[in-house]
Amino acid sequence: MKIGILGYGNLGRGVECAIKENPDTELVAVFTRRDPAKVKIQTPNVPVVHVDDAKNWVGKIDVMILCGGSATDLPTQTPEYAKMFNVVDSFDTHAKIPEHFANVDAAAKSSGHVAVISVGWDPGLFSLARAYANAILPDGKDYTFWGKGVSQGHSDAIRRVKGVKNAKQYTVPIDSALDAVRSGKNPELTTRQKHLRECYVVLEEGADAAEVENAIKTMPNYFADYDTVVNFISEEELLTKHAGLAHGGFVIRSGKTGMDKENSHIIEFNLKLDSNPEFTTSVLVAYARAAYRLNKEGNNGCKTVFDIAPAYLSAQDGAELRAHML
Amino acid sequence: MKIGILGYGNLGRGVECAIKENPDTELVAVFTRRDPAKVKIQTPNVPVVHVDDAKNWVGKIDVMILCGGSATDLPTQTPEYAKMFNVVDSFDTHAKIPEHFANVDAAAKSSGHVAVISVGWDPGLFSLARAYANAILPDGKDYTFWGKGVSQGHSDAIRRVKGVKNAKQYTVPIDSALDAVRSGKNPELTTRQKHLRECYVVLEEGADAAEVENAIKTMPNYFADYDTVVNFISEEELLTKHAGLAHGGFVIRSGKTGMDKENSHIIEFNLKLDSNPEFTTSVLVAYARAAYRLNKEGNNGCKTVFDIAPAYLSAQDGAELRAHML
Repeated sequence: MKIGILGYGNLGRGVECAIKENPDTELVAVFTRRDPAKVKIQTPNVPVVHVDDAKNWVGKIDVMILCGGSATDLPTQTPEYAKMFNVVDSFDTHAKIPEHFANVDAAAKSSGHVAVISVGWDPGLFSLARAYANAILPDGKDYTFWGKGVSQGHSDAIRRVKGVKNAKQYTVPIDSALDAVRSGKNPELTTRQKHLRECYVVLEEGADAAEVENAIKTMPNYFADYDTVVNFISEEELLTKHAGLAHGGFVIRSGKTGMDKENSHIIEFNLKLDSNPEFTTSVLVAYARAAYRLNKEGNNGCKTVFDIAPAYLSAQDGAELRAHML
Repeated sequence: MKIGILGYGNLGRGVECAIKENPDTELVAVFTRRDPAKVKIQTPNVPVVHVDDAKNWVGKIDVMILCGGSATDLPTQTPEYAKMFNVVDSFDTHAKIPEHFANVDAAAKSSGHVAVISVGWDPGLFSLARAYANAILPDGKDYTFWGKGVSQGHSDAIRRVKGVKNAKQYTVPIDSALDAVRSGKNPELTTRQKHLRECYVVLEEGADAAEVENAIKTMPNYFADYDTVVNFISEEELLTKHAGLAHGGFVIRSGKTGMDKENSHIIEFNLKLDSNPEFTTSVLVAYARAAYRLNKEGNNGCKTVFDIAPAYLSAQDGAELRAHML
């Protein structure tokens, strides 16, 4: 399976690592908007190509993995590239998924390609956990917790506060809330009860720490509804101790069965990840395998994780899966 | 969707409960090998029918849910009923799944029906957890823990010991092993390190407790490789305190990514169930929906959970799933 990577940031580098783990996949080219001469990749003898030349690779790539961002890249890139290739993206703006699906579906159907969108862990594996658990326990309640991990959006919001030079924000699930959910009591949890926001902030010279802390803690949407801890640290400490890309989270469904709803059940799926981008791209590569196989069977159009049978993700065939995984 | 139940034990009663939770399903008949007049079911105005009359229900049932046992019932029942109906079973003899698959596939293909086998939580949801996690993290290690819950096979083995009147055996996952796995260190765990065996035993009058305890603890395959705790109790206590059907377990995959395998990831799926049969049958009913839809689309043959896209299990359509679950 010949894979192309579009965009060589954290996700592009993650795909490159994941391809090494999957012997049935091969990296054939990395596409970039930058000057290709200035992009050094880690895989020997693989060309770096300018995006403008992607059209010359039609027929030479089985699946193009799109490693752009959801805000501005993917809404245009995914439909555009689905006209030329089977594609997989990690579009994660939940509210805009229906619109993105429609655009990508039209492009992929017109060209006869398979395009899998919103792949990763949330959306992605967490979506699967929600869908399976809801189908099995119709009478129940869903809980999703994120972390501990850095939230890029919240870190950016802190950096926009006057007097802040740099910052990282960790979303931390609160143990007592997790325990309450796992007890099967279906608690109603407020935003504040579910997650703590832990901030590491580097001040500009002469900035007033108390003012900055107050500005962060009272910021609507981002922090006002949470218990927020603000730690002021040096830039050196921020860069050395808070450069990690760890993340994770929990999807729990608690539901009832029985003629008198007398029995409770808890279905939990959780992830603990050292590297958010490397794990996300491991999922992307598995779904690239699915996109390739589905297209070879004559399928086309936009798909999500809900539309793809698990066997398509595996390098093992049906008989092997039944003998060893079932 | 018109559902038939074959066999009215714990599983059959569980299916009956699950149908109540799923408004798109309707129980149309319960089939039994017993005298139908002596089988009282909980759903009003639904007939109990002798299995010999099942052939008269062809065309009146969309999916027959087979609630027999894996040892002697399902190996013959599933192929036989797949000739007449779409069927779902919970065949759980792991080693015989390939043979069962082949027999059922031949029957279902010849009659144009869909037959989903080995549905439940293990095999079933645990199989899904293993397959997804293996496809995503090819370089890793799988761990499955069961319990805390009653093992029917181990309870039966104790009951065969001379001097034992009655017994229940709980399989208990050992916390320190779970913690070691979750640490990402990919420990090699012995049988003894993973599970404890907790036995509640009622002695025959005059039996020698020490002899019975020794016979249990040294029993090959069942107990000799485990730390086993034997508690002697009265029959009354056994029947009142150990009649529950709770169960559960954990599937964990720990894997590495990165150019130098420098990052660890943990994928965990776990279940905590008040009623093993009611949860199992909740899964069966979701896959009955899938069998019905797949057959309506023209599919036939034997399927497992690996072959079925998650969307087929859900009462929601694709657009709803994308808007609310993705």
